[in-house]
Amino acid sequence: MLIVQKYGGTSVADIERIKAVAERVAKTVEAGNQVVVVVSAMAGETDKLIELAHQVNPSPGEREMDLLLSSGERVTSALTAMAIQALGYKAIALTGRQMGIVTDSVHTKAKIERITGERAFQALKDGYVVVVAGFQGVTEEGEDVTTLGRGGSDLTAVAIAWALNADLCEIYTDVEGVFTTDPNIVPEARKLQRISYEEMLELASSGAKVLQTRSVELAMKYNVPLVVRSSFNDKPGTYVCKEDKEMEKVMVSGVAYDKNQVKITILKVPDRPGIAARLFKQIADANIVVDMIVQNISSDGQSTDISFTVPKTDRERAVEIAQRVSSELGAGGVVVDENIAKVSIVGVGMKTHSGVAAKMFETLAEHGINIMMISTSEIKVSCVINDKYTELAVRALHEAFNLKEG
Amino acid sequence: MLIVQKYGGTSVADIERIKAVAERVAKTVEAGNQVVVVVSAMAGETDKLIELAHQVNPSPGEREMDLLLSSGERVTSALTAMAIQALGYKAIALTGRQMGIVTDSVHTKAKIERITGERAFQALKDGYVVVVAGFQGVTEEGEDVTTLGRGGSDLTAVAIAWALNADLCEIYTDVEGVFTTDPNIVPEARKLQRISYEEMLELASSGAKVLQTRSVELAMKYNVPLVVRSSFNDKPGTYVCKEDKEMEKVMVSGVAYDKNQVKITILKVPDRPGIAARLFKQIADANIVVDMIVQNISSDGQSTDISFTVPKTDRERAVEIAQRVSSELGAGGVVVDENIAKVSIVGVGMKTHSGVAAKMFETLAEHGINIMMISTSEIKVSCVINDKYTELAVRALHEAFNLKEG
Repeated sequence: MLIVQKYGGTSVADIERIKAVAERVAKTVEAGNQVVVVVSAMAGETDKLIELAHQVNPSPGEREMDLLLSSGERVTSALTAMAIQALGYKAIALTGRQMGIVTDSVHTKAKIERITGERAFQALKDGYVVVVAGFQGVTEEGEDVTTLGRGGSDLTAVAIAWALNADLCEIYTDVEGVFTTDPNIVPEARKLQRISYEEMLELASSGAKVLQTRSVELAMKYNVPLVVRSSFNDKPGTYVCKEDKEMEKVMVSGVAYDKNQVKITILKVPDRPGIAARLFKQIADANIVVDMIVQNISSDGQSTDISFTVPKTDRERAVEIAQRVSSELGAGGVVVDENIAKVSIVGVGMKTHSGVAAKMFETLAEHGINIMMISTSEIKVSCVINDKYTELAVRALHEAFNLKEG
Repeated sequence: MLIVQKYGGTSVADIERIKAVAERVAKTVEAGNQVVVVVSAMAGETDKLIELAHQVNPSPGEREMDLLLSSGERVTSALTAMAIQALGYKAIALTGRQMGIVTDSVHTKAKIERITGERAFQALKDGYVVVVAGFQGVTEEGEDVTTLGRGGSDLTAVAIAWALNADLCEIYTDVEGVFTTDPNIVPEARKLQRISYEEMLELASSGAKVLQTRSVELAMKYNVPLVVRSSFNDKPGTYVCKEDKEMEKVMVSGVAYDKNQVKITILKVPDRPGIAARLFKQIADANIVVDMIVQNISSDGQSTDISFTVPKTDRERAVEIAQRVSSELGAGGVVVDENIAKVSIVGVGMKTHSGVAAKMFETLAEHGINIMMISTSEIKVSCVINDKYTELAVRALHEAFNLKEG
């Protein structure tokens, strides 16, 4: 088999962990497999580099930011290849460019356009373990380094698994798989043996940090078989795969939460067609991803309040755009609420079970938790609440949908 | 003017130092100059990375080593560009590859073959300060990262100054210029206002750490005007330039020492032609630079002892080769002496003054210092002595040649 193994920051946090990764790779080779390893930066490195950048410049150039941030994964890829070499195996470290990971040129948030992978193909044929620096690529002309955004190494791994037509993509992390919810909040949270791409996608985009959203999208699109498992032990982990009959019997598979958003409201927007389009086009042009949007008729009946949520990191730029649009439209100004959390329930079973959303609202109401925004998809219901109720809401929903039983 | 400014590790050691570099660059721009900045890794970073590499693998692959080590300068180049941007100037960070620094493929000790520099030319034309990651290049095919060896950022700076036809190459460091000897040993050591390329070259290859040897060779070859000065103040530094009449009046310009070599002796080598060639070809093939060589007729008159010195870092490999050659030839084995130092006096005045070497030997003898090896050039005399006498020898020679007077 050709296996892609991705090791996250905690799995390569220090020399001992890197040696443990090398041992696992060696074992996988000994079992008769070809292995491509994708590594993140050592835990804390990327944050350290971001901190340094902000110390020299409050708004550093994004091109230079990518050059800076890409160095962490390069270091780990070199060290990991050396550690594998030390065990007597042939290993070659490849940067994003050397792997042929071509992206668009949206620095710090680049999208992979294609992977040529010629050197990797050749190296695998020659009996090498290929160790790829995650999180990075190059622009079309091959000149500038780009990075793929937070969690980008997951995306690198899935994209490589797809490009090389790998049999399996293993995502190694510091948890044992995908849980029904965050075990730090609910100790009875249960590890799922299997979960569908769709559910995983909804969980990831609802704040579950185990896999990066775009990597799940890509895996789903190209049907790349994924396993999420721990690099600290040999337990089997959680398979992420196509939905099957068994999964549909379960109403809700997991509860996720996200404290990393802010709610921005433009007050008293004149109620004319095209206003929302104007606002959200400008926000999209700034490469800010809006999560939830709610529009209410204002008390005066002549205007509406438009609320939306964006990641906290984009707060400053999003507010700036909202304020500009507000004054252009003669609206009533912009209000920002930082103390929000999004709580979500996810499950393919929702397609066939009715009343799931109602049960969620009831459960929150029973605990005196006010719902500020609601959004739903075929297999997900999300509610924005005051963030002080996050843990309470997660526990209550985990209990109400009986998730510890499985 | 087009000025290349190179900042060493201590000059970019932390955020405050990087900001100070940005201020100096800004001042140079304000004075009407175009500026290319070459940066080293932050002080200590390269050693830290080497240490990590050796922790995972006692003999790490050199290709991976280069990928690892090149990351330090990339980080500094990005941060420095950001710091210049923060002051309101346009700045672009370029890696060795982006600068078009093409090298051979001798990893960890690559030689620059050419510099295309297209992006730098264009960026300068567009009003940017160009910040280049020192110490690194790419192989001919543009695929693999190479590094230029210790002090490689000096070489990067001089090579760029030559390739861009710069008017001046400033080497910023933590000392105020080139001194008659190490001020840590001789407090009366005097800063030289000017020194010839030839003298600087001899000083550098004799252990003076202020400039990397190959960078001086290159500057001399292409007549690149150099200044060595401190990034911690505005003092003028030392000009390194062509020899002139004034310089010749001075017999000795400086005293250098080098504790970084070991002496390897092959005992009782059969005295046949071609033996030395055979030994030193093998050592050269291993990319080890031999400094001094002495061959003595052995006491039996039938064989010779061959002694040579190499950098301590190459000790292991050089001894291995010497032992192989020794047993091939049926010689008497290999002896290694670690406790040696090389003390050198340098001056273009030697060409026209006689008795300089004799005075050096006398001075050492007066202080009871035994000379183990001697080598001379037109403008240099070097003696290998027991390293415990290093400081004594340097002080005595500085005094004997009256260097504090100038």
